[in-house]
Parts: sequence; structure tokens; C-alpha cells
Amino acid sequence: MTLKIYCFRMSQPSRAILIFCKANGIDFEEVTVDLTKGEHKLPEYKEINPFGQVPSIVDGDLKLFESHAILSYIACASPGVADHWYPSDVAKRAKINSVLDWHHSNLRRGAAPFCLHTILGPLLGIPMSPEAAAEAEKILTASLSQIESVWLNENGKFLLGNSEPSIADLSLVCEIMQFEILHEEDRIRVLTPFKKVLKWIEATRIATSPHFEEVHKVLLAAKSALHKLPLEEDYESMSSIKAMLP
Amino acid sequence: MTLKIYCFRMSQPSRAILIFCKANGIDFEEVTVDLTKGEHKLPEYKEINPFGQVPSIVDGDLKLFESHAILSYIACASPGVADHWYPSDVAKRAKINSVLDWHHSNLRRGAAPFCLHTILGPLLGIPMSPEAAAEAEKILTASLSQIESVWLNENGKFLLGNSEPSIADLSLVCEIMQFEILHEEDRIRVLTPFKKVLKWIEATRIATSPHFEEVHKVLLAAKSALHKLPLEEDYESMSSIKAMLP
Repeated sequence: MTLKIYCFRMSQPSRAILIFCKANGIDFEEVTVDLTKGEHKLPEYKEINPFGQVPSIVDGDLKLFESHAILSYIACASPGVADHWYPSDVAKRAKINSVLDWHHSNLRRGAAPFCLHTILGPLLGIPMSPEAAAEAEKILTASLSQIESVWLNENGKFLLGNSEPSIADLSLVCEIMQFEILHEEDRIRVLTPFKKVLKWIEATRIATSPHFEEVHKVLLAAKSALHKLPLEEDYESMSSIKAMLP
Repeated sequence: MTLKIYCFRMSQPSRAILIFCKANGIDFEEVTVDLTKGEHKLPEYKEINPFGQVPSIVDGDLKLFESHAILSYIACASPGVADHWYPSDVAKRAKINSVLDWHHSNLRRGAAPFCLHTILGPLLGIPMSPEAAAEAEKILTASLSQIESVWLNENGKFLLGNSEPSIADLSLVCEIMQFEILHEEDRIRVLTPFKKVLKWIEATRIATSPHFEEVHKVLLAAKSALHKLPLEEDYESMSSIKAMLP
């Protein structure tokens, strides 16, 4: 039975899982759960994920949600995934788990509400609050600063000083890639000070190219629609990351 | 070299790790990092955990923080830990990981600020806000309800319908045990409706007795000091959980 991935490409953890599977040649069926149409609230989807969130997977008898748990499961259950993605060494694996845990209560806690309260609210039927945006920006900026001073504070292009990416790199980078859809002044204010973060995003893109670009196309199309920008076919013309690099 | 656990027994994730190690006969040295004295902000502690939070561990060359990553590491790295704590089967392990991920963005996101904004603030030098307490209570109540309807919604005494506890049971139960120090009316209002949760806390205590009681003594002593209650030696006289059971 093929692995089924229930996801929505506008959701950052959905993209991380899709890129991971594509970059590792894992066979799967992508099932879109359109959040803007409320498909995540349908009873048939709640049979898979009672909390009604994306992403989820079904693999044989297993129904699983929470993107970090999904990434580590797929890395362990699929033959042929290179060890650097989720090392079998218990100490190395534990370090990657600690970045993923940190993600929940730091980067994600800032990034997700920041996008919601500066741009995405109306699309999802949620009222935006400038106070919530300001509070989210504080957590977000502190988190980006900690990524630079702690997680990227070693030699090596990737988190924890690694020379090749792990599932943590993909998960955190996809979170930050969501900022493509922000108002330009917000994106520039929040991201420009963090050159190490920008370089690491580029390194992760290159390590998973062309899947990274392909999976992010939907996001860049949404950016074009939201901000009335011409939609270019070419990823590099649409993405803002490279332009912010020194 | 002995495993060193840097912790503070008033911190719920610290207690989960201590109970886990004691219940599994794991040799370790407990190093208290007193949060009320600011010991987590000292440069020598930040060498271990740059974010200055407890718990952390040092095991040989490995420095590790984030309690879920620590629990899964110790379960995998220590010989003789019974499989039910963190199963080697990838699907079973993935389900436990998904509960732990859920914990971050749900139960913990409600429980920790609820304790902070109803009772603990002054002890930690953080101003309390009734609005933050009300917001936290909403998240907390929704989370407790989801534990009952989703995670405990199968036969079996423990999460996911298991007949024996996992690291997820210990982690979530220790989070809720923090409510011992709440004002009685807060604790009763929040916890009494959730009979399945209360039964599961008792089942987890019994499965890890007498370590559960021993590690929670500090919390019950703090409850006695905060609320000017007589300090009983006996755990059952001090704990409120059993009394709330039908």
C-alpha cells in the first residue's frame, strides 16, 4: 500500500514532508486537504486526524499526524534514506530531536501567528490583531537570533554544524519560507538582519533542489496573487531570499 | 561517566525525567539548578544549555536539552529499559512522538502560563495577568478535553490505548501534576470535569510508585508553603488527585 500524505502546500510543515519524500525518492500519493475550503474539518478527514490539522499520513494501518513525528517516521520506515537526514546514532539523533522540540515552543510560536496577524488572517477567516502581530514578532526575532547564535553557531552549512541537512533543517527552513507571502516591509525588517539564516535557507534549497522549488511554487503563486505581483515561472525571480543575501 | 541530570524538581519536565530514570533503575547524578536563585542564568549553566532552561543532561560528550529529546535519548541509550516506555517498533514509536509533539503546542501551551498567571508569577519575578490566565485556561481546558476524547479514547489505562506507560504518559502527567500548587478553586474548576484524565494520572503514579511520590514531594511541600497548609509526610494526604476521583 502506498504512503498517503494528506497536506496543503500553503502549510509549511506539509511542504517539509513533501520535499523530504521527493528528495529521498520515496513513493507516495499526495492528497490535498484545502484549508481555504474547510476540507480539514470534514468528518472523513477527522477520521485520519481528529484535530483536523494538516499534514497527516496514512501508511498501512498507521494514521499519523504532527509533522515532526511524520518526518522521523518516514525517515526510519523508508529504506534508503541517507543517514544524515535522521541519524541512527542515538546522540546525533537526540540533538536533532532537541532542535525539533525547540522549534515548537520558539520559532513556530513566533512565525505562525506573525503570518496570521500580518497577512493570512482574512484568507483563513481569522481576525487580525496588531498586538498579536507585535507579540509574535518579538518571539520570532528572538528565535531567529537564537538560530544564529546557537543552532548555526558551528562550522558546517546546516544546523548543529552538520555538513548535510537533517529533517530539522527542512522543518525550520520551510517555516521561515512562509515569509515569502508577507508584506515586503515586514519580510525585510524581520529577515534581513539574519544573514546566517538566509545563507542556511539557500543551502537547504540547493541540497533539495529541484524539489524545494517545485513544492514552494504554490506559495510563490499565492505571494503573486496577494501582492498583485507578476507571476514568473522562474523560482529565482519570485523568491526574495537570494536578493536579501549580502 | 555517570549521566548528569541538571534539573529543578519544581519544573514539570525535570520531574518526568527523574521519575523515568528512577523507575528504570538508571544510574545518574542529579544536579539541582535552582530557578528561584537564578542558577539557570549562570554562565557555567549556559555552557550546558545556552537557552538557560531546565532540564538538561550531560552524558559523556553529549550535552542535551529539551525534555522530550532527553527522555527518548535516555530510553534508547540505556540498556534494560522496557520496550513500552519508547517502543522500538517504528509505528508505535511514531504515535508516541506525535503525542509528545502535540503536548508542546497544546497542553503545555495552556498549562505552563496558567500556573504562571494564577500563582507562580511572583515567585519567578514575572507579573501576573488575568487576561493571560483566562487565555491559558481556554487552551488548557481544550487540551484536557482532547486528551480524553483522542489520546485516552481507547481501551487501556494509558495514552494511545496502551496497557503500560510510555515516556509520553510521564511527560503529560507531570505537566498536569503542577496543578497541585494552584489555588484550590482553580484546580477544582479545571480538573474535576476530566475524570478519565484523573484516573490516568493515578494509573501513571501507581506504575511508577514510589518514585513518582518521592519526586513530587518538593511540589507538595511548595503547595503547603504557598497555601499555608500543614505539611504531611504522607503523599496521599497531600495530593489532591485521588480526592477528585469519583
